[in-house]
Amino acid sequence: MPRYTAPTKDMQFVLHDVLKVAEQNIPGYEDLEADFTAAILEEAGRLTSEVVAPLNRIGDTEGCTLENGIVRTPTGFKDAFAKVKEGGWPGLDMPEEYGGQNMPIVIGTAVGEMFSSANMAFTMYQGLTHGAASAILAHGSDAQKDTYLPNMVSCDWTGTMNLTEPHCGTDLGLMRTKAEPQEDGSYKITGQKIFISAGEHDMADNIIHLVLAKITGAPDGIKGVSLFIVPKICVNDDGSLGARNAVAVGNIEEKMGIHGNSTCVMNYDGATGYLLGEEHKGMRAMFTMMNEARLGVGMQGMSQAEAAYQNALDYAKDRLQGRDVTGEKNPDGPADPLIVHPDIRRSLMDQKSFAEGARAFILWGSTLLDASHRADDAAAEGLVSLLTPVIKGFLTDQGYDMTIKAQQVYGGHGYIEEWGMSQFTRDSRIAMIYEGANGVQALDLVGRKLAQDGGKHVMAFFDLVKTFIKENAGQDADFDAQFLEPLKTASKDLQAAGMYFMQNGMKNPNNALSGSYDFMHMFGHVCLGLMWARMGKAAMVALEGGASDVAFYETKLHTGRYYMARQLPATALHLSRIQSGAETVMALEAAHF
Amino acid sequence: MPRYTAPTKDMQFVLHDVLKVAEQNIPGYEDLEADFTAAILEEAGRLTSEVVAPLNRIGDTEGCTLENGIVRTPTGFKDAFAKVKEGGWPGLDMPEEYGGQNMPIVIGTAVGEMFSSANMAFTMYQGLTHGAASAILAHGSDAQKDTYLPNMVSCDWTGTMNLTEPHCGTDLGLMRTKAEPQEDGSYKITGQKIFISAGEHDMADNIIHLVLAKITGAPDGIKGVSLFIVPKICVNDDGSLGARNAVAVGNIEEKMGIHGNSTCVMNYDGATGYLLGEEHKGMRAMFTMMNEARLGVGMQGMSQAEAAYQNALDYAKDRLQGRDVTGEKNPDGPADPLIVHPDIRRSLMDQKSFAEGARAFILWGSTLLDASHRADDAAAEGLVSLLTPVIKGFLTDQGYDMTIKAQQVYGGHGYIEEWGMSQFTRDSRIAMIYEGANGVQALDLVGRKLAQDGGKHVMAFFDLVKTFIKENAGQDADFDAQFLEPLKTASKDLQAAGMYFMQNGMKNPNNALSGSYDFMHMFGHVCLGLMWARMGKAAMVALEGGASDVAFYETKLHTGRYYMARQLPATALHLSRIQSGAETVMALEAAHF
Repeated sequence: MPRYTAPTKDMQFVLHDVLKVAEQNIPGYEDLEADFTAAILEEAGRLTSEVVAPLNRIGDTEGCTLENGIVRTPTGFKDAFAKVKEGGWPGLDMPEEYGGQNMPIVIGTAVGEMFSSANMAFTMYQGLTHGAASAILAHGSDAQKDTYLPNMVSCDWTGTMNLTEPHCGTDLGLMRTKAEPQEDGSYKITGQKIFISAGEHDMADNIIHLVLAKITGAPDGIKGVSLFIVPKICVNDDGSLGARNAVAVGNIEEKMGIHGNSTCVMNYDGATGYLLGEEHKGMRAMFTMMNEARLGVGMQGMSQAEAAYQNALDYAKDRLQGRDVTGEKNPDGPADPLIVHPDIRRSLMDQKSFAEGARAFILWGSTLLDASHRADDAAAEGLVSLLTPVIKGFLTDQGYDMTIKAQQVYGGHGYIEEWGMSQFTRDSRIAMIYEGANGVQALDLVGRKLAQDGGKHVMAFFDLVKTFIKENAGQDADFDAQFLEPLKTASKDLQAAGMYFMQNGMKNPNNALSGSYDFMHMFGHVCLGLMWARMGKAAMVALEGGASDVAFYETKLHTGRYYMARQLPATALHLSRIQSGAETVMALEAAHF
Repeated sequence: MPRYTAPTKDMQFVLHDVLKVAEQNIPGYEDLEADFTAAILEEAGRLTSEVVAPLNRIGDTEGCTLENGIVRTPTGFKDAFAKVKEGGWPGLDMPEEYGGQNMPIVIGTAVGEMFSSANMAFTMYQGLTHGAASAILAHGSDAQKDTYLPNMVSCDWTGTMNLTEPHCGTDLGLMRTKAEPQEDGSYKITGQKIFISAGEHDMADNIIHLVLAKITGAPDGIKGVSLFIVPKICVNDDGSLGARNAVAVGNIEEKMGIHGNSTCVMNYDGATGYLLGEEHKGMRAMFTMMNEARLGVGMQGMSQAEAAYQNALDYAKDRLQGRDVTGEKNPDGPADPLIVHPDIRRSLMDQKSFAEGARAFILWGSTLLDASHRADDAAAEGLVSLLTPVIKGFLTDQGYDMTIKAQQVYGGHGYIEEWGMSQFTRDSRIAMIYEGANGVQALDLVGRKLAQDGGKHVMAFFDLVKTFIKENAGQDADFDAQFLEPLKTASKDLQAAGMYFMQNGMKNPNNALSGSYDFMHMFGHVCLGLMWARMGKAAMVALEGGASDVAFYETKLHTGRYYMARQLPATALHLSRIQSGAETVMALEAAHF
C-alpha cells in the first residue's frame, strides 16, 4: 500500500527561506515564526500520514454506497472525520467568532496539501464545506452566518456547491432549476443538480447545500441566476434541527476515481431555500467559492503528484533491475536499483521539480490571497485573480502527468490496483475537469484576466519577474546562467505571446482563443521558473550563511537547475504554436472532421 | 455508450493513395487492388462495429472472474469469439498451409486496428495467439508446427507469452523459472509467471503457453534463458487432447483497465514443456514475438485514440454550450455546439491529426515488415527494426494523451464511467507499459538500434526524408512552406540530437541515455511529419487529378497543416532537453531525492 509522509521540511523552506512569511507586512503573519508553523505542520503531518492516508485505498476499493436514500462512506471515514474535527483542522483559517482559529490562508493551504495528498476523496468533505462556509461568510446576512457558520466551521455540518445540471455545466445561463418566492421571504427550489460532491453522506448531522437557481421572472441567461442556502434538514429559530427539507439524493455516480467521495445527483422538489446575497447576483457570490475552490483544485493536482512521487521514489530505490551502464552500484546484489538508470531519474526529477515548484507557487498565491483579505492589498488581489486559472489549469494538467510518470516507474505493477499507483492517476484526473474544465480556465485567463484593469496585473507580474532578475543578476555567474537567463528567456516568450494576442486577437478573437491553452501552460512554466529562481537564490543564501543541512540546500539547487534546463524551455514550443494562429485550428467545417 | 465506426475510407486512402500497395514489388501485394482491400475492410468494419464494439463496456464492467481454477470471460465474449473465428479473421495473415489466408501483414494490421479500436481487451485473446503462433512458425520444428499451428491459426487454441516473474520484468536475466530435461526430450517447467494476458479463460479448447525458463545448469543471466511450449492440456501424438498439464492459474489481477482480458498469475509445477528453438537462445525466439507484439501495441495506442476521438467528436457536435465568439452558429438553439470553440477544436485537431498520422505510420511500418518477410528486403528489415521502438513508445504515449483529451471534451461526463470515455484512457494506459515499458523502448532505440549495422538504418531514414523533400520541393510554394519546410526543420533537429549522442555519449553514456526518451518522441514526430507530408502530397495529387471527394482530400491537407504547425515543432523542445545533457539528470545522490 502506498505511504505518505508530509513534506514538512520543504514547506518550512518555502514559508521561511523563500516567502519569509513572518517578515511580511500582513496582519496575522507576525505570528508565523518557524517554530510556530513547524508545530502545526508536524501535527498535521502526523494526523494525515497516520490516520487519513491509510484510508485512501479503502476509500477507492469500497467507494460510497446508496441505499434507501442513505449514503454510506467507506469503512473508517467516519472515525477519521471525527478525529479531524476534534483537532479543529476544518476551522484552521476560519474566523474565531465562528469557532475557527483565524490562521492565514497560507497555513490552511500547507495543511490542506497534506490532507489532500493523504486522501483526496476524504478531504473533499471538509474542502467543500470550507468553500460553502466562505461564501456564506462573504455574502450571508448576520443571521445566516450565526445559523450556519459555527456548525460548518466545526464540520458538524458539511457543505456543497450545486451548479451543474444534466444539460449545462460551463454555460450556466442554460440553467433550469427554479426558485419560487414565498410569503415568508424564503423560496421553493425545484430542479435537478448533478455531480454534487459530498451531496449526501453519513458523517455530518446536516448538509448545507448552496444552490444556483433562477427566481421566477428572472432575466434570461446568466444574469438571472441567484444563489440559495438549502439545508438538508431545516434549522429551527433556536438553532436546533427541524424537519427534513425536500431535497434528496437521486443517485450516486460511478466514477473513474475519488470513489471515497459521494458524487450525487440531487433532486430539489420544492425544497425550502434562502437567498444568499443579492437577487440575480448568484454568479458573483458563487465566484467567491469558485476562486478559492480553484486554488484548492490546483493544490489537489500537485498533492497527488507529490504522493505518487514519494511512492515512485521508494520503488525506484527498492526494485533491483538492470545495471548502471557506467558501473555497478550494487555489486553484491543481483542487479542495481532502478534509480541508477538515467531515464528513471529523468522521470523522478520531472516529478520532484514539479511538486516542489508547484508547492512554492501555491503557497505564494496563498500569501497574495492573505494580503488581499487581511491587508486590503488591491495589487495582490489583482495578481492572484490573474494567477488563479494558471494555478488551477496548469497544476492539475501537470500534476496529472506526474502521477502517470510515477505509475510508469512501477512498470507492470503500476497497472495493478493493489499497488495503489493507478488510484493517484484516477483521483487526480478529476482535478483537470471540475471547478471549470481546464479549457475554460485558459479562456478565463486569456479572454478575461489578461485584460482585466487595463492589463495592469499581467504587467505587474512581468515587472515582478524583471525586478527579481535585476536584483539578483551579476552576483554569481552560475546562478545567472542556470537560473536567471532561462527565466528571462521564458518570460520573454510569454510576453511575446501576449503581444501576439494583442496584435491579432482584435481582428479575430480566435487568434487568441486558439492559443489560450498553450498560453496557460507557458504562464505556468514561467511561474514555476520564477519560483525555482527564488528557491535557488534562497538555497544559495542559506548555504552562504552556513546552514547545517548542506545536502538539503544543494539538492534544491540541483532540482532547480533541472527544471530550468529541462522544463522551462517548453515556453518556446507553446509560443510557436500560439504564433501559428487560428488558421489551422479553425480551417475545417464541423461536418468534415 | 460509445460507438465505433471503422475508418475504412481513411485506410483505403493510406493503402492506395499514399502507400500505393498494389504497385509495390512485394509478393502478394499484386492482389491488393482497391476493390479487394475495400471488401475486406468493409466486412471487418461491420463485424467490429456491430459485434465486437458493443461488448467493450460490458467487458470493462463485468471483467473476468476466477472460480475453482476456471476463468470466465464477460457476457457475450464467447459468442463474439466464435463469430470472429467463423469469419477466419484470426488467420488472415497466417500461412495457408496452417489454415490461414496468407494476406500481407499490412492487411492484418488494418483489420487489427479495427478490432483493437472496437474492443482492446477482447482482441488481445487473438492478438496473443497470433504472436505465439508467429514464434512457433519462426522457430518451431515441423512437428511442432503441425501440432500447434492449425489450431492456433483458427483460434480453437489460444496462445500466451510468459516472461515476467514477480521480481523481474525488464531484466529477464534474473529469471528463476526452471526447466529440467527429461529422458524423452521434454522438460519439466517449474516457476511462477505474472501478468500473463489471456493466461486462462473459457473461450478455447486449449491454451498454448510460451514460457521462458532456465535449463538446469544453464549460464547465468540472459544467456541462459530458453523458450518452451507448455500446453495447458497435453496433446497426444494423434493430435487429440490428452491429460491436463501441471500448469494452473493462481490468481487474476485487479487492473486499471482491459478488464475483459484475464491477466493471470500462472503457476508451473513441473509442467511438461517442449523446447522451442535452440537451448539458451530463448530471448532470440521471444524477440520474434516481441517485435511483432510491439508494433501491435503501438497500434493499440493509436486505436484507442481513434475510438475515443470518434466519440469526442460526436459529443462536441451534439452538446450545446456557450456561443461562438465570432457570431452564433446555432441561433435557433439555446447555445452553440462545443465544436465552435477554438480550444475544443485544438483538442479535436490534435486527436485527428495524431490518429490519421499514426495510422499511416503503422501501415507504412507493416509494408516494411512485409517487404522484409516476403521479399527478403534487408534494408526494410533494418528500417522497421529501427522504427519498432518508436512505433511502440511514441504511439502509445501519444495515443494515451489523446484519449485523455477526448475524455476532457466531455467535461464532467467524461469522468463518469457510464459514458465510456474513462475506459479508453484506462485501457490504453497499459500499452505504455507492457511489451517493454516505454523507457525501455527509448533505451532500445538509443542504446541499440541507432548504432545497429554501423548506423546504416538511421542514415537510410534520413535519406528517405531528404529524398522526399527534394523530389517534391519547388512545385507548390504553399506545400513547400506548410509541409516541406517544417519537415526539414524537424528532421534537422533529429539529426542534431543524434550528433549530440555521438559526440557526447562516448565519454559518458548517460549523455545519450538521459535524452533517450526525448529522442524517441522527436523521432516519432518526424515520422508523423513525414507521413503527413506524404499524405498531403497524395491529397494534392488526387485533387489535381479531379478526385470527386474534394472535401475528403482538402480535409487531409488542413489536418496535415495543423500537425505541421502545431505538433511537429515539438522536436525543438526535445532537442534542447537532449542538448542540456546528463548533468542535471544525474546530479543527485539517490539518498537526496
